[in-house]
Amino acid sequence: MSIPEITQKLLTAKENKGLTFAELAEVLQCNEVWIASVIYRQASASPEEAKLLVDTLGLDIDDAKELSKYPIKGSDAIVPTDPFIYRFYEIMQVYGLPLKDVVQEKFGDGIMSAIDFTLDVDKEEDPKGERVKIVMSGKFLPYKKW
Amino acid sequence: MSIPEITQKLLTAKENKGLTFAELAEVLQCNEVWIASVIYRQASASPEEAKLLVDTLGLDIDDAKELSKYPIKGSDAIVPTDPFIYRFYEIMQVYGLPLKDVVQEKFGDGIMSAIDFTLDVDKEEDPKGERVKIVMSGKFLPYKKW
Amino acid sequence: MSIPEITQKLLTAKENKGLTFAELAEVLQCNEVWIASVIYRQASASPEEAKLLVDTLGLDIDDAKELSKYPIKGSDAIVPTDPFIYRFYEIMQVYGLPLKDVVQEKFGDGIMSAIDFTLDVDKEEDPKGERVKIVMSGKFLPYKKW
Amino acid sequence: MSIPEITQKLLTAKENKGLTFAELAEVLQCNEVWIASVIYRQASASPEEAKLLVDTLGLDIDDAKELSKYPIKGSDAIVPTDPFIYRFYEIMQVYGLPLKDVVQEKFGDGIMSAIDFTLDVDKEEDPKGERVKIVMSGKFLPYKKW
Amino acid sequence: MSIPEITQKLLTAKENKGLTFAELAEVLQCNEVWIASVIYRQASASPEEAKLLVDTLGLDIDDAKELSKYPIKGSDAIVPTDPFIYRFYEIMQVYGLPLKDVVQEKFGDGIMSAIDFTLDVDKEEDPKGERVKIVMSGKFLPYKKW
Amino acid sequence: MSIPEITQKLLTAKENKGLTFAELAEVLQCNEVWIASVIYRQASASPEEAKLLVDTLGLDIDDAKELSKYPIKGSDAIVPTDPFIYRFYEIMQVYGLPLKDVVQEKFGDGIMSAIDFTLDVDKEEDPKGERVKIVMSGKFLPYKKW
Amino acid sequence: MSIPEITQKLLTAKENKGLTFAELAEVLQCNEVWIASVIYRQASASPEEAKLLVDTLGLDIDDAKELSKYPIKGSDAIVPTDPFIYRFYEIMQVYGLPLKDVVQEKFGDGIMSAIDFTLDVDKEEDPKGERVKIVMSGKFLPYKKW
Amino acid sequence: MSIPEITQKLLTAKENKGLTFAELAEVLQCNEVWIASVIYRQASASPEEAKLLVDTLGLDIDDAKELSKYPIKGSDAIVPTDPFIYRFYEIMQVYGLPLKDVVQEKFGDGIMSAIDFTLDVDKEEDPKGERVKIVMSGKFLPYKKW
Amino acid sequence: MSIPEITQKLLTAKENKGLTFAELAEVLQCNEVWIASVIYRQASASPEEAKLLVDTLGLDIDDAKELSKYPIKGSDAIVPTDPFIYRFYEIMQVYGLPLKDVVQEKFGDGIMSAIDFTLDVDKEEDPKGERVKIVMSGKFLPYKKW
Amino acid sequence: MSIPEITQKLLTAKENKGLTFAELAEVLQCNEVWIASVIYRQASASPEEAKLLVDTLGLDIDDAKELSKYPIKGSDAIVPTDPFIYRFYEIMQVYGLPLKDVVQEKFGDGIMSAIDFTLDVDKEEDPKGERVKIVMSGKFLPYKKW
Repeated sequence: MSIPEITQKLLTAKENKGLTFAELAEVLQCNEVWIASVIYRQASASPEEAKLLVDTLGLDIDDAKELSKYPIKGSDAIVPTDPFIYRFYEIMQVYGLPLKDVVQEKFGDGIMSAIDFTLDVDKEEDPKGERVKIVMSGKFLPYKKW
Repeated sequence: MSIPEITQKLLTAKENKGLTFAELAEVLQCNEVWIASVIYRQASASPEEAKLLVDTLGLDIDDAKELSKYPIKGSDAIVPTDPFIYRFYEIMQVYGLPLKDVVQEKFGDGIMSAIDFTLDVDKEEDPKGERVKIVMSGKFLPYKKW
Repeated sequence: MSIPEITQKLLTAKENKGLTFAELAEVLQCNEVWIASVIYRQASASPEEAKLLVDTLGLDIDDAKELSKYPIKGSDAIVPTDPFIYRFYEIMQVYGLPLKDVVQEKFGDGIMSAIDFTLDVDKEEDPKGERVKIVMSGKFLPYKKW
Repeated sequence: MSIPEITQKLLTAKENKGLTFAELAEVLQCNEVWIASVIYRQASASPEEAKLLVDTLGLDIDDAKELSKYPIKGSDAIVPTDPFIYRFYEIMQVYGLPLKDVVQEKFGDGIMSAIDFTLDVDKEEDPKGERVKIVMSGKFLPYKKW
Repeated sequence: MSIPEITQKLLTAKENKGLTFAELAEVLQCNEVWIASVIYRQASASPEEAKLLVDTLGLDIDDAKELSKYPIKGSDAIVPTDPFIYRFYEIMQVYGLPLKDVVQEKFGDGIMSAIDFTLDVDKEEDPKGERVKIVMSGKFLPYKKW
Repeated sequence: MSIPEITQKLLTAKENKGLTFAELAEVLQCNEVWIASVIYRQASASPEEAKLLVDTLGLDIDDAKELSKYPIKGSDAIVPTDPFIYRFYEIMQVYGLPLKDVVQEKFGDGIMSAIDFTLDVDKEEDPKGERVKIVMSGKFLPYKKW
Repeated sequence: MSIPEITQKLLTAKENKGLTFAELAEVLQCNEVWIASVIYRQASASPEEAKLLVDTLGLDIDDAKELSKYPIKGSDAIVPTDPFIYRFYEIMQVYGLPLKDVVQEKFGDGIMSAIDFTLDVDKEEDPKGERVKIVMSGKFLPYKKW
Repeated sequence: MSIPEITQKLLTAKENKGLTFAELAEVLQCNEVWIASVIYRQASASPEEAKLLVDTLGLDIDDAKELSKYPIKGSDAIVPTDPFIYRFYEIMQVYGLPLKDVVQEKFGDGIMSAIDFTLDVDKEEDPKGERVKIVMSGKFLPYKKW
Repeated sequence: MSIPEITQKLLTAKENKGLTFAELAEVLQCNEVWIASVIYRQASASPEEAKLLVDTLGLDIDDAKELSKYPIKGSDAIVPTDPFIYRFYEIMQVYGLPLKDVVQEKFGDGIMSAIDFTLDVDKEEDPKGERVKIVMSGKFLPYKKW
Repeated sequence: MSIPEITQKLLTAKENKGLTFAELAEVLQCNEVWIASVIYRQASASPEEAKLLVDTLGLDIDDAKELSKYPIKGSDAIVPTDPFIYRFYEIMQVYGLPLKDVVQEKFGDGIMSAIDFTLDVDKEEDPKGERVKIVMSGKFLPYKKW
């Protein structure tokens, strides 16, 4: 999984400034996963958002322009090998069909949009150990008949 | 994606009884995604849970025994072609790395467990159209040093 | 590419009745590609549509029930080998990136929906030989920022 | 998906000039998808067309020569991960077989050419949201018997 | 590589009758590779051709109907393992690019059609041992500009 | 499909000299496909042939040495995406098994050599449009029994 | 790796008769690897050899006919998982390029035929433990220039 | 198949010195395939062997150090496309199972080691043309029961 | 992952008898992982061991014969999807190279045998939760020089 | 398998200092496999551990910072070709299912963690030759029901 040069530049600047994604999100008034996606070139920012981001990180306006382009999205490993990312592949392998049935029973034949979509991360305290809470919210898109 | 025979039998019985996953979940006092996973042979039920399920569906005790076995989990399509399931693959492709960075910044080097893990589905009403809300909660597992 | 049993049954009945997809579409007041997708179990019909279809084909009501289920969609050949279908794969390989740029320049960062989507086929007469005209119309879905 | 150097150079020049594909197409008297395909090195221009294009973009005649070569076409991701491009893969997966049957019922055993082929993009206004309209027109090629 | 049932039936009948592909081709007034392709369900025959073929092989009219259907073409092994067939894969691997350049230098940017296409086999006597001569003839299709 | 540096150098020289493969073949007294294969590093030339070739193209003797090495042959795309080359893959997919049967019926159990092999290209005039004629001639190699 | 029915039948008969491949080879006056290849449908026997084999195994003449057909050769696991067979894949992975250079330095640009080819197995006694000795002998085929 | 830099350096030196693998093997008192494997970084030499090799080739002691490292072995093409190397893949595909049965009938359940293993190449003169003789000798390793 | 019929029969008998792998191992005086491997047809038992096993499970002598055959080993999923088995794939992905370096630093250039190999499982009590302990012991095989 | 630059730098320094992994582990008071994993960027060290490591190797503090980042883990070869690493893939292929059954019979439905996990290497002396002993210890994670 090769990381784009602009991503490496932004991550290094973020590290040098000692800023977290949550702090960047606060500056841009947006969600931390979304701003991380902009940095990883999986999402595009408006020129104003991009400028605010590179200013916060102490980088050039030229870098901002890069962040407003509509990127070619996705990675190139068909099955991810990184254990953190793989677990999401595994969730899809194990729970994909049951989830499809449960959602479609509630909503009809269609899908959860991955475009009109948000993704939030939270920490849940738990006596047996902290838990990662991920909330996905996607518009339900029913199949059109024509 | 071949569906096990026992799954087909249970789904047919469920359809004939006119029961939803939510109703089955209520009978078993559990989550509807989990009970769907048992039916799809991606999770195993205790003998009592299995008996209660087959009784509710009007099936034999022999089918219950099948549901208590520890299944070989996962499907066999490397990249899923069903659009509903593919969207979760796409989410992993597009948001995998940003998510990893955001979570690990909050929790340290480790993963969200897909075993000590729950998955809930909800319907969100929205003026622009209903939304599917999926909540994942997995224990954070830090990498052990040794 | 294995064809479901119900599909084979419907295609045989259609052939025996000497009906075309266009004629079936007229009966159901819908598009011929959509009705073919129902028959191939890539789309689901309402109980009324399904009943009308099996009646027209002289089949049982049980077959109708099958057609109202929400199918697991997609085929299993990663790269299709049938020359007719492959050409669409080739179009995506050759024109995918240029198309992305042209559409996104017009619409912004987002996709053409393959769910809120229609597909029409027409014959174009041409002195150099008939042409196949395919019209795709999909809702534009802009990436949500959050 | 690696983008050829010449493509990057042309896209940067286009961006700096503030020109759209539609405007380039008007200059060259051609379709905007085709001119985008030339820029992405998926199609070849005549020396005159190439010269006109590089002149419009303020680039060198040497770049024009590159655009008249017959490129090795196609990308190298077997299954595309970019969501915009993937939707076309999905359309082929879901509607490939139904489309084949509908077209072949109308035309006989053969294919829609992807070579003697045009691809047009339009914006359709719609109260529920803009739609992307894509029109493909390919010569029907019947299988030769010999 | 699974062989369709109808193919196995036809090949057995052909073997029992002691007929060669060349003899069948003579009966049908066509090429032996084409008639073999019909038998392997890679090409479709007209009802008259199909009837003549099954009559010659002493089979039923129902088998003839099967041979007039437009088949899903292609095999499913991505890289063929049979040594005879592999050699053609190897020829494409080794001579693909040189051939592309030589043909396109003669004809322009385009392809050799595999649809408007014939394939002949001959035996060449040679003092160093017999040679297989294969003649492919496909219409040249130039890329359309639009 | 990455092209070796030496190939790019030779193709550029050939283009600058305005020479065709056919003209190079005439100089070397060989077939144009073979000389293209040498340039693409899929075949090796004798030192004399290599010298003659680089002399004709106005290049250095060092380049000649490169052309006499025995190359690692083949490309690295398992399924070619270039439409010109893909058609040969498709021919193998569609006509592979019928061809095997026709050839083996004539010659016995064995293969057509892809090593003791020649490949010729011709243009066939035809009222319906020019045709590409490709003639393959390979020694028949019968399976040895031992 | 699915084993053909005829192979299973022959292996069972061989086991019931308590015969080794070496003993079968003696009866047929051939090598034991070759006769095993016939049984596994990777090689074809003459009608006489086939009859002698099925007679020796106490089977029917119909089985003999099957053994004279020219089989579709090869298995379908791209990378073999059986450890015995994998070691040959590994040898090719590790020693493939060095072997190519050593052989081609001795013989010129060409290959070792896998068709005009024999394969012998022997047991080598050795104080440190028995060794498997495999001798491959294939005709050298030089690349033809044309 | 990318060749390590050190390999390219050694092969160039070997070529410039006009030395064959057989001559290098004689200097090092070892087999020519093994020394080729060291050069291709598929085997490791002792410091003395490495020094002797680089001295013979007129290279630096630093290069010797590289040759004593334990390399990551194997290539990265799953199915080799080079025809010379492919033939060994084909031999495994075609003769893998028969060979397994013949060897295991002689030796019991186990494998031929590819580690405690030697590989020799010879030229066999033959009136019908030279043959490549390859002798593999690997220790038989019986499966341990525990 | 398809389970052989004989395996299913033995597992059902084992379940009906209420026997654990540990109990079977005690009867056969062997390790429980090995006996499970025999049942899954990944290892072969001697006729005596096989008889003892089928007697214990109350099955036929014919089943015993099956267990003494030398099986084709391995499964067919290239990347396992079952989470339990996947973790071992992940361990190889993550720790493969470090492990190679540590072992080879201690032992020299070579491998740990997977044939002269044992695998033991234990339960480790731990205040933070039980641990699975797996002990692998394989003979070190140094690369032979020749 | 490409090795990160920082890994190469650390391995070279380690080699120049003549230090073993075991010696580095002693300095850091940790296991040698874990320290090797840090060097291969498969594990992250604390800033103190990283500083101690680079000090021991005589490298810069900047390199230490690199070692505290949470790496993208895993390699990119789906099936490893290096024989040392492959054996672990083979163990998973051959013993994966039996191991799953034995462990799950002891522990219930769940997995051995590869995160809360340690890996130790030892040398076992044995009259028949040294053995590699690998001890894996991972927390058992039972599937949560919800």
